Amino acid sequence: MSDYFIGNKEYFSGIGKIAYEGKGSDNPLAFKFYDPDKMVGGKTMREHLRFSVAYWHSFCGDGGDPFGNATMQYPWRDPDPMKSAKNKLDAAFEFITKIGAPFYCFHDIDMAPEGANRVESEKNLIEMTDLAKERQESTGVKLLWGTANVFSNPRYMNGAASNPDFSVVGHVAHQVKAAIDATIKLGGAGYTFWGGREGYMSLWNTDMKRELDHIGRFLNMARDYARKAGFTGTFYIEPKPMEPSKHQYDFDSATVIGFLRQYGLDRDFKLNIEANHATLAGHDFAHDLRVARDAGLLGSVDANQGDLMNGWDTDEFPFDVYQTTMAMLEILGMGGFVTGGLNFDAKRRRNSTDLEDLFLAHITGMDAFALGLQAAQRIIDDGKIAEMVRTRYASWDSGDGDAFEAGKLTLEELAAMGEKSEPKSVSGKQEYIESLLNGYLFG
Amino acid sequence: MSDYFIGNKEYFSGIGKIAYEGKGSDNPLAFKFYDPDKMVGGKTMREHLRFSVAYWHSFCGDGGDPFGNATMQYPWRDPDPMKSAKNKLDAAFEFITKIGAPFYCFHDIDMAPEGANRVESEKNLIEMTDLAKERQESTGVKLLWGTANVFSNPRYMNGAASNPDFSVVGHVAHQVKAAIDATIKLGGAGYTFWGGREGYMSLWNTDMKRELDHIGRFLNMARDYARKAGFTGTFYIEPKPMEPSKHQYDFDSATVIGFLRQYGLDRDFKLNIEANHATLAGHDFAHDLRVARDAGLLGSVDANQGDLMNGWDTDEFPFDVYQTTMAMLEILGMGGFVTGGLNFDAKRRRNSTDLEDLFLAHITGMDAFALGLQAAQRIIDDGKIAEMVRTRYASWDSGDGDAFEAGKLTLEELAAMGEKSEPKSVSGKQEYIESLLNGYLFG
Amino acid sequence: MSDYFIGNKEYFSGIGKIAYEGKGSDNPLAFKFYDPDKMVGGKTMREHLRFSVAYWHSFCGDGGDPFGNATMQYPWRDPDPMKSAKNKLDAAFEFITKIGAPFYCFHDIDMAPEGANRVESEKNLIEMTDLAKERQESTGVKLLWGTANVFSNPRYMNGAASNPDFSVVGHVAHQVKAAIDATIKLGGAGYTFWGGREGYMSLWNTDMKRELDHIGRFLNMARDYARKAGFTGTFYIEPKPMEPSKHQYDFDSATVIGFLRQYGLDRDFKLNIEANHATLAGHDFAHDLRVARDAGLLGSVDANQGDLMNGWDTDEFPFDVYQTTMAMLEILGMGGFVTGGLNFDAKRRRNSTDLEDLFLAHITGMDAFALGLQAAQRIIDDGKIAEMVRTRYASWDSGDGDAFEAGKLTLEELAAMGEKSEPKSVSGKQEYIESLLNGYLFG
Amino acid sequence: MSDYFIGNKEYFSGIGKIAYEGKGSDNPLAFKFYDPDKMVGGKTMREHLRFSVAYWHSFCGDGGDPFGNATMQYPWRDPDPMKSAKNKLDAAFEFITKIGAPFYCFHDIDMAPEGANRVESEKNLIEMTDLAKERQESTGVKLLWGTANVFSNPRYMNGAASNPDFSVVGHVAHQVKAAIDATIKLGGAGYTFWGGREGYMSLWNTDMKRELDHIGRFLNMARDYARKAGFTGTFYIEPKPMEPSKHQYDFDSATVIGFLRQYGLDRDFKLNIEANHATLAGHDFAHDLRVARDAGLLGSVDANQGDLMNGWDTDEFPFDVYQTTMAMLEILGMGGFVTGGLNFDAKRRRNSTDLEDLFLAHITGMDAFALGLQAAQRIIDDGKIAEMVRTRYASWDSGDGDAFEAGKLTLEELAAMGEKSEPKSVSGKQEYIESLLNGYLFG
Repeated sequence: MSDYFIGNKEYFSGIGKIAYEGKGSDNPLAFKFYDPDKMVGGKTMREHLRFSVAYWHSFCGDGGDPFGNATMQYPWRDPDPMKSAKNKLDAAFEFITKIGAPFYCFHDIDMAPEGANRVESEKNLIEMTDLAKERQESTGVKLLWGTANVFSNPRYMNGAASNPDFSVVGHVAHQVKAAIDATIKLGGAGYTFWGGREGYMSLWNTDMKRELDHIGRFLNMARDYARKAGFTGTFYIEPKPMEPSKHQYDFDSATVIGFLRQYGLDRDFKLNIEANHATLAGHDFAHDLRVARDAGLLGSVDANQGDLMNGWDTDEFPFDVYQTTMAMLEILGMGGFVTGGLNFDAKRRRNSTDLEDLFLAHITGMDAFALGLQAAQRIIDDGKIAEMVRTRYASWDSGDGDAFEAGKLTLEELAAMGEKSEPKSVSGKQEYIESLLNGYLFG
Repeated sequence: MSDYFIGNKEYFSGIGKIAYEGKGSDNPLAFKFYDPDKMVGGKTMREHLRFSVAYWHSFCGDGGDPFGNATMQYPWRDPDPMKSAKNKLDAAFEFITKIGAPFYCFHDIDMAPEGANRVESEKNLIEMTDLAKERQESTGVKLLWGTANVFSNPRYMNGAASNPDFSVVGHVAHQVKAAIDATIKLGGAGYTFWGGREGYMSLWNTDMKRELDHIGRFLNMARDYARKAGFTGTFYIEPKPMEPSKHQYDFDSATVIGFLRQYGLDRDFKLNIEANHATLAGHDFAHDLRVARDAGLLGSVDANQGDLMNGWDTDEFPFDVYQTTMAMLEILGMGGFVTGGLNFDAKRRRNSTDLEDLFLAHITGMDAFALGLQAAQRIIDDGKIAEMVRTRYASWDSGDGDAFEAGKLTLEELAAMGEKSEPKSVSGKQEYIESLLNGYLFG
Repeated sequence: MSDYFIGNKEYFSGIGKIAYEGKGSDNPLAFKFYDPDKMVGGKTMREHLRFSVAYWHSFCGDGGDPFGNATMQYPWRDPDPMKSAKNKLDAAFEFITKIGAPFYCFHDIDMAPEGANRVESEKNLIEMTDLAKERQESTGVKLLWGTANVFSNPRYMNGAASNPDFSVVGHVAHQVKAAIDATIKLGGAGYTFWGGREGYMSLWNTDMKRELDHIGRFLNMARDYARKAGFTGTFYIEPKPMEPSKHQYDFDSATVIGFLRQYGLDRDFKLNIEANHATLAGHDFAHDLRVARDAGLLGSVDANQGDLMNGWDTDEFPFDVYQTTMAMLEILGMGGFVTGGLNFDAKRRRNSTDLEDLFLAHITGMDAFALGLQAAQRIIDDGKIAEMVRTRYASWDSGDGDAFEAGKLTLEELAAMGEKSEPKSVSGKQEYIESLLNGYLFG
Repeated sequence: MSDYFIGNKEYFSGIGKIAYEGKGSDNPLAFKFYDPDKMVGGKTMREHLRFSVAYWHSFCGDGGDPFGNATMQYPWRDPDPMKSAKNKLDAAFEFITKIGAPFYCFHDIDMAPEGANRVESEKNLIEMTDLAKERQESTGVKLLWGTANVFSNPRYMNGAASNPDFSVVGHVAHQVKAAIDATIKLGGAGYTFWGGREGYMSLWNTDMKRELDHIGRFLNMARDYARKAGFTGTFYIEPKPMEPSKHQYDFDSATVIGFLRQYGLDRDFKLNIEANHATLAGHDFAHDLRVARDAGLLGSVDANQGDLMNGWDTDEFPFDVYQTTMAMLEILGMGGFVTGGLNFDAKRRRNSTDLEDLFLAHITGMDAFALGLQAAQRIIDDGKIAEMVRTRYASWDSGDGDAFEAGKLTLEELAAMGEKSEPKSVSGKQEYIESLLNGYLFG
């Protein structure tokens, strides 16, 4: 019996199940570092990393950019939109099972073509997700999260839930409700909101306060509906600072956390942090993960990599093992994913036009995170860096420091302590830690 | 009787009180646009703008930069630190009264030299602020806000209230307590916290959560002390995203607002927004003002201008009237300053070495804000842009939109409305508004 | 007789010739500052500014962005591509004559649809440009420059003249030759190369030296062909640092000037500087103009405005009069345009979906440059800033300074002069100049 | 006999010669990857890497930043400037020999204190470099390059050779001449110009063309003098785009190459590329190395690392092995250094205040480059990537492609080839190469 899915036609023929062959392997279509069953710190790599394939980039992305037309050829395309969608679903499950990802993510319109109106669109979605459910059951692949694309259609050019025109928000609701229904049906572990049009083009024509209130209200409504309909998973907000809007409301982790708390959403929602969005906001990827983690709100990760010399979202497959190591440290540090995972919100470069490039790109990303996971575990097991940090803050663990933390000191009392002799200069040892890091990575 | 202050010596001799001469004037040492007594929308320019001179840049800044030594010569300098400080105080009040600013701001160490230890430093501060009190009373100049410099001394290299070493925080408390006492004595309308070292150099050696908790606790202690001691003014936090630290905790308005709310500080604290800090965070100046204003937390403004082609805090005197217009629109939009004002946290370029350049720079900034104020008032009086915005959101003012805002709709009800016919495409009219703007500025 | 063109159908009905009504006018569809026949410094505004309409943005741009589909509806569209192209040509000349621009610019595929192969594409281009020639003759509108789009077609995904695959370069040549032929036929004053795909996605797979040699060679071939075919206008290179490629070879003015000189192209080619490209490269718009002007290579300008808070090419219509003033100072400073002009390489925001927005956007841009032109002329006429600069460098005009410039001093001789007494500190007077600038703009 | 230098006093007592202990070592004060005598591709690591210690950061840097005072304590400081300088020289040679760097670099004022005037300053420099010569001879340490600091003194605030005031340029000449003399005396392999003040603060008061002409002339004079005085080494220009000036003339590799060629300097000068300067200019480090290498002008490297989330020159010790690998590929690709080397123009973080941190930081950097060298050699030895690149451009190696390169084709001939059938889509294989890269690094 085959260990991957093939539908009516094998779309990636010549490529079988991607196997772990180890770092000596010369086979481009094999993992060198990702060994799904290998135990790392008490769990398998598969369980730790919870890889997910992004339906949109992997099966819908056409390679177009603002200055160029589509470059990608997909053999599953058909003039009939629903036929095309069904072929694509087969191709998707073939790919997901061949690459060996336990999860996938999708927007409504990635999987089901829009119809002439919302009723038809929903009908298409229901039909396609019925099929997807069958595929999930027969393959064991699961849905990490679903979502609605409420940013591409021109109807949303002025916003989705933040649209100045109330009549647009009804469309948003209809689409989100259907996507929530689909997510529940497919047993999705999460449901994501990416506010691609929730922001402004110009502050001059924008009532920012009112727009944010509308989004807050809308998310409460969506949460209430989903809970009532039986959704037990996690809701995610995905921060991004800019693009396509001049300013996106979900700027970064800190901004979104403030928003969730203000609108009473922080018990049901967590953050889905994307590496390239964090860096566009002027933060290291690890920083935005840490901010979310410290708030107890780190939910899931959109695993990609930006180009720090370019000022837009390049959504590259991650390969920088420094980044993956720091990311895995945050994830291990919070005890690992609960409902979330590592979703490859990443696209092949538009000139990576061979079908096999889809495999090669995912192999690159999965190996990079496998390396990062192992390095992170080495760092944790060795404990040297954690011990340095603990020692650095030891003065707060007892005595007056502890009294401060417990709220037992007044400013006058604290000031009185400050009259004492000058504190000693304490090195931060940054370069030494960087040397340790290279030891863990290359030792 | 002279309308400006002169101490034992006139430091800016040859320059008298800067007068409004109007736009025809060819006199560099005169205002062309700032006419303090001119009424604009029911208040004088002086009352609207509440200009403040920054003691640090104007009287302490030496023109040094990371690659160059001091360029500024100050005639009030003396080998004896306290003598120097007193001369400087005279020079400061001479300048402030000649330029005609109703306010000034200072850090403790701007005005009083640090002594051998905290006891001596506080003694110096008390002596100097006693003198400053006399000067304030004799001139009518007021203190917009005071603050403590807890970032320059090497003792703070790892943080002030966020320092991993508890013993440093006692020093912070001592210094802050003394600065609060001084501010109260001088009748300061506000007290500012700029967390120049509250952030991290490396996330690797940092317990961010613990550091933020410490800052939150510390600010509560400081607030409690000041209120008990009789301070009735406003506390300010000044956002900045980076520099000197790699990452500053008070990143931007949204981050700081979230922080204030989390730590129960949002009833006593407001934001002091600096233009150049907003742009370093990737936001327009007006954006960060708006975010603070929408939260009811816009308190004061550090009026300067950054160089958007450079990635550090250039702290230039503001001259871009687009920026001053947008800033004044936010300030007028919230009903004007209460305790805050426009503090010129701006420094002459290091090659602007003539003493008169200090006047020329302030004239540039004050005229730019006078132009901005008048343009903003024209925009408000004309009402065209506000009306466009109102119309844009009119669908929320009644009917289902209003029900949505009132929390009376469920997602299902809203979705049902979305089945209706496609919404019309509504232009955002951005270019037209930009044309209107130029009409207000140049019409 | 009408003063604007109407083809078979009036596409912008209800809008006539845009007139100058002056700054008191409340009519959105009128110029407030651009008075084409007004004399400024010895020439009319029309002669100075040489406005040009960009065919691609104005008549082809569909409002799509990387996260959203087309938003623009164009009434001239027809299922038959050539019919559509002819309607569009009518609409274009209607718009150009109504807005009163003396020039336009186009890429081959803006005007003529691509056929099944290069032979058909060229046939379409010939047919369409024959028609355009008639329109030019009947309206007096002229072609500022033509160009070939060798970046949008997926064939060019790896480069045009820089393509690693030689067979692609033949296609480039075919397309460029046809576009040059069309430009000559239409009497174009210039021919532009924008190397949208001349750059790299990854340095790892790129032989940069070989690619640059190929481009250099190709441009020599194109120049030789065009000259032989009778083209007497100017060739332009348009710098851009990044986007769509990770790195574009024509990074900025300095880079392109070095390239032109290296490949022997600097006598036939000049630069076409785009504001938004300059700022993406980390330069002020004025800087890149100055660099080109100082090299005698400033040819033409793509007049738009970027969003300095966003890291991609937003191509907004220019409205910042500081920017237009500085640009006009550089242009007046070189004696005005010869073959070049101000081409609005700018697009309405994707939510500016009213057809009239196309007019409003151009009015905004034309008025902004009219303001800039007049301010620049005031600055020149007044002469104060120029005199300050002259004085600043006066020590080089005679004596040893002059001997230095003439190459008559050795390092030893110069060093000997340096033993003398310390030079005086000379203020750069930057803030004062900024104050003067506001005086010219708002005085 | 000791294998390191100790002067009158051992300043880094407790630390001996840093040894290679291999990756298993737990000793912070040992190399884990830099094994100086290990052969890599036919040369020892020591010969390849040619490490150099930067006198300024390592022995002069005080830890001050724009918002903070000095944090570093140096035990060699003495109230007498010349005594202090001599102690520092001993400390420097102790450190350089203990860390095992074969080279060092210095600015005149790093080593010798400025006197009351140029004559005294030169006298100090002569005295100190006489001593340094002795130290070099007794230790075998060599001078990689010398330079003059013509940016820190306030005299240079408006520029050095670009100063608008001719009288300043005499001072520059005097200082540069003395520094050249010192470099010759010390057998320096190179002499560097870093134009820290060659740029502008404001374009408004700047005659950029005249300033660049002055710099070009000055460098010709300096070159002529040095050659006449017997200097046979390489002159270097070090690009930097901004900071301290708003715009630095030596923006990046491409700009400097154009400048060198324009002023006839490209036979004597090469580029000294600094990683953090390249990234400030919006380029990858490898990009600027490649540009210089392709022009035959890559001379030396200032080895450091910037923080891509911060917009100023952070000058961190390099630890990112991706960066060091790409750098070493460029260096090996040009056949290795001739006169240049890897100079650590890097500073400990200002809170790395332990004296041992100076060792730890250099160990981090040296190990990171040792890792990069070995990875680069593996990539070269394996040859897979190079072969992919060769294949990608194979169509240019013969036939029509070769004729194109040889200048034998006209545009018409080339265009005729373009009528042929559509070129095939050829994948760039970027993700696969990134996977290979991780295989080389972590395999």
